[in-house]
Amino acid sequence: MRIALDAMGGDLAPGPIVAGAVNAVQAHSELRIVLVGDQTKVEPLLAGAPAGAQARDRLEIFHCTQVVGMEESPVVALRKKPDNSISRCWQLLAEHKVEAIVSAGNTGAMVAGGFRLKLFLKNVRRPGIAAILPTLKGPCVLLDVGANVNPKAEHLFQYGIMGSIFAKYILKCDQPKIGLLNIGSEEAKGHDLAKETHALFNHSQHRGDFVGNVEGRDINKGVCDVIVTDGFVGNVVLKLSEGVFEFVMKMTGKELMATLQNEKPLGQLALQNLIKRYDYHETGGAPLLGIDGICIICHGSSGERAIGNALGVAAKYIEAKLNELIVNDIASNPTMASEE
Amino acid sequence: MRIALDAMGGDLAPGPIVAGAVNAVQAHSELRIVLVGDQTKVEPLLAGAPAGAQARDRLEIFHCTQVVGMEESPVVALRKKPDNSISRCWQLLAEHKVEAIVSAGNTGAMVAGGFRLKLFLKNVRRPGIAAILPTLKGPCVLLDVGANVNPKAEHLFQYGIMGSIFAKYILKCDQPKIGLLNIGSEEAKGHDLAKETHALFNHSQHRGDFVGNVEGRDINKGVCDVIVTDGFVGNVVLKLSEGVFEFVMKMTGKELMATLQNEKPLGQLALQNLIKRYDYHETGGAPLLGIDGICIICHGSSGERAIGNALGVAAKYIEAKLNELIVNDIASNPTMASEE
Repeated sequence: MRIALDAMGGDLAPGPIVAGAVNAVQAHSELRIVLVGDQTKVEPLLAGAPAGAQARDRLEIFHCTQVVGMEESPVVALRKKPDNSISRCWQLLAEHKVEAIVSAGNTGAMVAGGFRLKLFLKNVRRPGIAAILPTLKGPCVLLDVGANVNPKAEHLFQYGIMGSIFAKYILKCDQPKIGLLNIGSEEAKGHDLAKETHALFNHSQHRGDFVGNVEGRDINKGVCDVIVTDGFVGNVVLKLSEGVFEFVMKMTGKELMATLQNEKPLGQLALQNLIKRYDYHETGGAPLLGIDGICIICHGSSGERAIGNALGVAAKYIEAKLNELIVNDIASNPTMASEE
Repeated sequence: MRIALDAMGGDLAPGPIVAGAVNAVQAHSELRIVLVGDQTKVEPLLAGAPAGAQARDRLEIFHCTQVVGMEESPVVALRKKPDNSISRCWQLLAEHKVEAIVSAGNTGAMVAGGFRLKLFLKNVRRPGIAAILPTLKGPCVLLDVGANVNPKAEHLFQYGIMGSIFAKYILKCDQPKIGLLNIGSEEAKGHDLAKETHALFNHSQHRGDFVGNVEGRDINKGVCDVIVTDGFVGNVVLKLSEGVFEFVMKMTGKELMATLQNEKPLGQLALQNLIKRYDYHETGGAPLLGIDGICIICHGSSGERAIGNALGVAAKYIEAKLNELIVNDIASNPTMASEE
């Protein structure tokens, strides 16, 4: 299997990005990676890669001259920089030269690149980014976390379907329960989008898996396996979870240091274990579900390990034939199979 | 000063609600409380209150026969139950028989009660609920957290003004900085509401206090003192903060118990201190800012201590003449002083 990696995307690119690719081909013998970026910068970084079948032979470079900056306006950048690494990754995917693309670059540009090409799975209205949140009962899929800030109810409904397939085949959740993020538990709560989405689920063949509204305080309790919401709220939830976690870790550290006597180092060790366990570097990026192909968006600050994990995850999605499952499920929902 | 308390509102009503009122009049000698609720239920609960000027004389009962259930649809309930305790509280405020109202009952009904009467401060377009979040640099005001799920940019702008006055005069923050909750730091990020609100601040006399967009992960870092957002997102943020905190406390507890050896009890003590410090019972409820009068909405599970604190907080707002300050500031923003 062949994956395109945006060698220029991310705060740390290209060094740790290329290093992550080298690790990935060593770890996965079936993997071939196309490093998309400036050849003069990428080539020297490959000098250290082990020669032969172990690695170097399965690393190619697709040269391009431009990079979308992390803070650039996605739409403007894609227009003004036609030879940027993100657009080239999408081009390789559209031409079926790769099965997956991975980038730690400008998230908005990654999404816009796919939306511009309309490289969507059959009957998928709008792709959405899925993130995995920890809960007391295991991982939970949240989507969308930023691709679609003005969704329609049909989009959220499809996010439920796609998230559910993701939870089942990737997270190995037996019968995923779907919840709608809302501001109260009753059906009539929230804005129009929430009410319409609620009705769509209740009148679909997924109603048996739909647990109704879930509130902000329920997410980490693990009341369901998939939570759907619009890209604005999802993005806030994802980043706030990260922020509150960091805040609580800092406050807890202070409190422990002030309270413990002889076991301060053990207290610190416990917190370090927790921070490691909930580190986003371990999760391997967030998939943009609904794309005809696999698209993984990594945290901007991703380093070698995060990129390596993301490439491994992309390989897993390809193997699981995630997209076939999504297309079949959406086709089996009659209201959704018709054109918009 | 005279405050109406919804004696029937909240999961634990009326027992701990009335007990909180008894404590409050004992703690604040200038306070008179009107307990709004079923006399046959409230009267016996006052039997234990100390007689004389200490308390009993400053506790009255305003009898009403109906209660809005915590899960009832606010609009339907207010229409079908005209003699409910929430509507009676609002009536007392509208008739200037009290200066403030406090309820731990159905939040939606509290808000709807005020919106129905349009008991808004001069030039305030739409009141919003303000919540206080902890940050690394002290408390931060977040609004709206649930009163207005379909706001216009003008509403968010006014939330900035009201939150700023709240931060300055109640939280004693010297020169409050205002941030707009968004999904990226650049001006062009987010949905239309975010972009329009951003522009309003940048063209107002508050632009010097406006720090621009803040993301979910920045909230607890204390990058600003006031954060404005719509009621849907704000509600999710408030409840998610609570949920992540609980989740992290549980995970930390487990990890500490597995790691510490002889100082497990000290580790538990540290966590209990943290839980106590960030307990919403201590905050004393959330004000619905923009109402002509003081309106405090308490957590549904509020008990004696939470209600006592909320009554104390209401008294503080009355003393600070918060509403006069809001009216003056809004009047001094020319674009806002005109009618809609």
